[in-house]
Amino acid sequence: MAKSWVNSAERIGSDLHLELVEAGGRRAALIGALREAVREGRLAPGTRLPPYRSLAADLGVARNTVADAYAELVAEGWLSARQGSGTRVADRAEPLRQADRTPRKAPRAPGPRHDLRQGTPDASAFPRAAWLASCRRALQQAPNEVFGPGDPAGRIELREALTEYLARARGVRTEPDRIVICSGFAHGLRLLFGSPGRVLAGPLAVEAYGLPFHRELLAAAGVRTVPLSLDDQGARVDRLARERAVLLTPAHQFPTGGPLHAERRAAVVDWARARGGVVVEDDYDGEFRYDRRPVGAVQGLDPERVILLGSVSKSLSPAVRLGWMVLPGRYVDGVLAAKGEREAWASVLDQLSLADFIVSGSYDRHVRRMRQRYRSRRDRLVAALAAHAPHVEVTGVAAGLHAVLRLPPGTERSAVKAAGWQGVALDGLAEFRHPATDMPAQDGLVVGYATPSEHAYGAALEALCQVLPPEADKPPRASR
Amino acid sequence: MAKSWVNSAERIGSDLHLELVEAGGRRAALIGALREAVREGRLAPGTRLPPYRSLAADLGVARNTVADAYAELVAEGWLSARQGSGTRVADRAEPLRQADRTPRKAPRAPGPRHDLRQGTPDASAFPRAAWLASCRRALQQAPNEVFGPGDPAGRIELREALTEYLARARGVRTEPDRIVICSGFAHGLRLLFGSPGRVLAGPLAVEAYGLPFHRELLAAAGVRTVPLSLDDQGARVDRLARERAVLLTPAHQFPTGGPLHAERRAAVVDWARARGGVVVEDDYDGEFRYDRRPVGAVQGLDPERVILLGSVSKSLSPAVRLGWMVLPGRYVDGVLAAKGEREAWASVLDQLSLADFIVSGSYDRHVRRMRQRYRSRRDRLVAALAAHAPHVEVTGVAAGLHAVLRLPPGTERSAVKAAGWQGVALDGLAEFRHPATDMPAQDGLVVGYATPSEHAYGAALEALCQVLPPEADKPPRASR
Repeated sequence: MAKSWVNSAERIGSDLHLELVEAGGRRAALIGALREAVREGRLAPGTRLPPYRSLAADLGVARNTVADAYAELVAEGWLSARQGSGTRVADRAEPLRQADRTPRKAPRAPGPRHDLRQGTPDASAFPRAAWLASCRRALQQAPNEVFGPGDPAGRIELREALTEYLARARGVRTEPDRIVICSGFAHGLRLLFGSPGRVLAGPLAVEAYGLPFHRELLAAAGVRTVPLSLDDQGARVDRLARERAVLLTPAHQFPTGGPLHAERRAAVVDWARARGGVVVEDDYDGEFRYDRRPVGAVQGLDPERVILLGSVSKSLSPAVRLGWMVLPGRYVDGVLAAKGEREAWASVLDQLSLADFIVSGSYDRHVRRMRQRYRSRRDRLVAALAAHAPHVEVTGVAAGLHAVLRLPPGTERSAVKAAGWQGVALDGLAEFRHPATDMPAQDGLVVGYATPSEHAYGAALEALCQVLPPEADKPPRASR
Repeated sequence: MAKSWVNSAERIGSDLHLELVEAGGRRAALIGALREAVREGRLAPGTRLPPYRSLAADLGVARNTVADAYAELVAEGWLSARQGSGTRVADRAEPLRQADRTPRKAPRAPGPRHDLRQGTPDASAFPRAAWLASCRRALQQAPNEVFGPGDPAGRIELREALTEYLARARGVRTEPDRIVICSGFAHGLRLLFGSPGRVLAGPLAVEAYGLPFHRELLAAAGVRTVPLSLDDQGARVDRLARERAVLLTPAHQFPTGGPLHAERRAAVVDWARARGGVVVEDDYDGEFRYDRRPVGAVQGLDPERVILLGSVSKSLSPAVRLGWMVLPGRYVDGVLAAKGEREAWASVLDQLSLADFIVSGSYDRHVRRMRQRYRSRRDRLVAALAAHAPHVEVTGVAAGLHAVLRLPPGTERSAVKAAGWQGVALDGLAEFRHPATDMPAQDGLVVGYATPSEHAYGAALEALCQVLPPEADKPPRASR
């Protein structure tokens, strides 16, 4: 009997591969090794462990070390000790079951050969050095309280920097106390419409073409969306009626590309005043306008009626999860309540870095540099189409990171499919159409020209030109 | 008439304080100045603007510059132009109304003289230099795709680092595909219970003493919580019945401070298996255990039945908004759906920095350093109480960042109040009590000893000792 214990101790001892010089000490090493052996099934449930003395002798450690290790693993539930029956491997420590593992779908497929999807800036252009410099200054200069519990509104440094920047660059009229930092547009929308104590209620008018993702988010939050038709002056805000709020992309209608006409800008503010409505302004790419100065934000016309949502997702990177909500004073407390006192969400270090990035002028420099880069890409796109597909009309190119190529009616779906076969990823306009709109369907391709890196852009353009449908009935629509 | 225009042009011109050498050019400067003048009310609604020629002459700029500026401001809605009536300041550009401004309550009052509230680590101890080094490496080594759209599960680098770290430090058994990065415990809880397509449903058993904030979050999400009494072995999981899930703090019951007994650990896993229930493990301070090795996570006993939520809020700083959800495989897709494809929430740069911080060993070094610091603070607390208030029993001090000072029945409320008068901020146990529990109320003070900076701690202890109630009926409860 004694012999068999010794054998068992030897077997278990050699199974443990103990590194007794490990940093944490012998006891820690023994615990880790035993736990690992149980976890991996080398010590099966029910296995009786050798007495302290045998294992200690086999391993050359003190008896107390083994006793302590057993006790610890009993406390953790790996082993069980019963009076008179010694220490055994507990029944419940099952190995990870293979069957239950989710075969996770690859989070994002390796990526198409030519990525002309709208929505993301050139990831290779992230200003790493300048951002790191801002990180360094932020980390060095931050008072200690930065690392304590945060203000749910966001760091005051960033709200102050944004107040100044948005006034200068976007004509926004606000003050730091009316700004709430969030982690991007979708988070902002969720805080307004999706929280249990919702700040705004539907029905919400939206543009007949827009991001399906936003509509889905709103639908999931129980908000009914009512589509507004688009014409060559933008959304038909003159048709607003009993909706409680309207969501617009006034600077650059997404995805069709025109700005909201001055009269419509005025009209939507008048509607909000007359009906007690609210305008939610999605200022997603207001900084990128090529042929004239950016159109200022509608928010500047009436800061009491317009909520502006912006982010750095297009201007810098969606990886910096930072956005802002510029709010009429009466909504601030509701948004903060929805955000939750303890969930300051957005990284405080990123907030401080962005504040420094703006105040130090790096943000302006980066936006200028990217504006030039995207403008030149847009010019190349327009030139390539003029040369290789002159029958295809391009619209929405005065601003932003994407263009719309108008196609003859009924050809969009096959054009998108053909592009896919050639490794060109892009979306058709149908993707963005509100299912309930009654405006005539438009065929077109939404071509994001910001996503490829600089060296990949030429090839992407070539591939694009090759997959466009040949000349046919050209739609009579005028270019914007 | 011409003269009056010139006067008006002069008046407006001098009002504009134009800096014509401004970087953006004269046109931009003029637009900015005019907008500012309208915004601030210096140019009142309805005011007719001088013709291009007059203002151009007054300012010494080209007529076209003025014409362009007017056109721009008309497009933005600041000015209106009507055939035959010239250009006027539009009616709708109202100044920010003072009346509607929210007098924002100070987000966090300047802070008490002695902050002994639980819940936050010493903000002065944030490892700025090591974190910056990790930021630098992360920024330098990141592939470009990092700055594109993110994986909603979080960066693979961080999920891999956590898989290894949590196995080693907490006995967690998982793999990167079962981890979802979130921005903290509350976010994780919201993803599990609060999303429209909710992953887990109530009723949810919770400990009879716990963070009210969590209960409120759950209540707001429509989840009914059922309190489990506590005894000296921890939560009475043997009383679990038809609840669908149970939320526990097994390593260190919050706030009372004991670990969940080994038998209870086993019992709760057995319950989950028998009833198809789920254990949600709040591993909020599992790294800080002083008198013996940390108790491993219950998750290691059954990775298919236990969801572990952890974060760096206690170990590093709540300002780094990063947490993790270690999930049974079958919940991964549901949590990702709740999180939203486009809302990767947690800062990608922070995720990469934390991955580097863990892999490079900085995280271990920091945790060790803080463990020593907090242990010494705990020892000072215990010694101070032994010397100055020997009648006050201290419990829950084997681990964590707080202790519980047991008080005679009925004295808690006045002790908290007395502390407040002396500038000592702390909470009473009553704060944490589930309103529906039938377990006998316990009087006590929850003393967080991590929050003050090192140099402020001594004074805080002194102040604490002075506000404790004098000796009275000592409760018979034994120290844990």
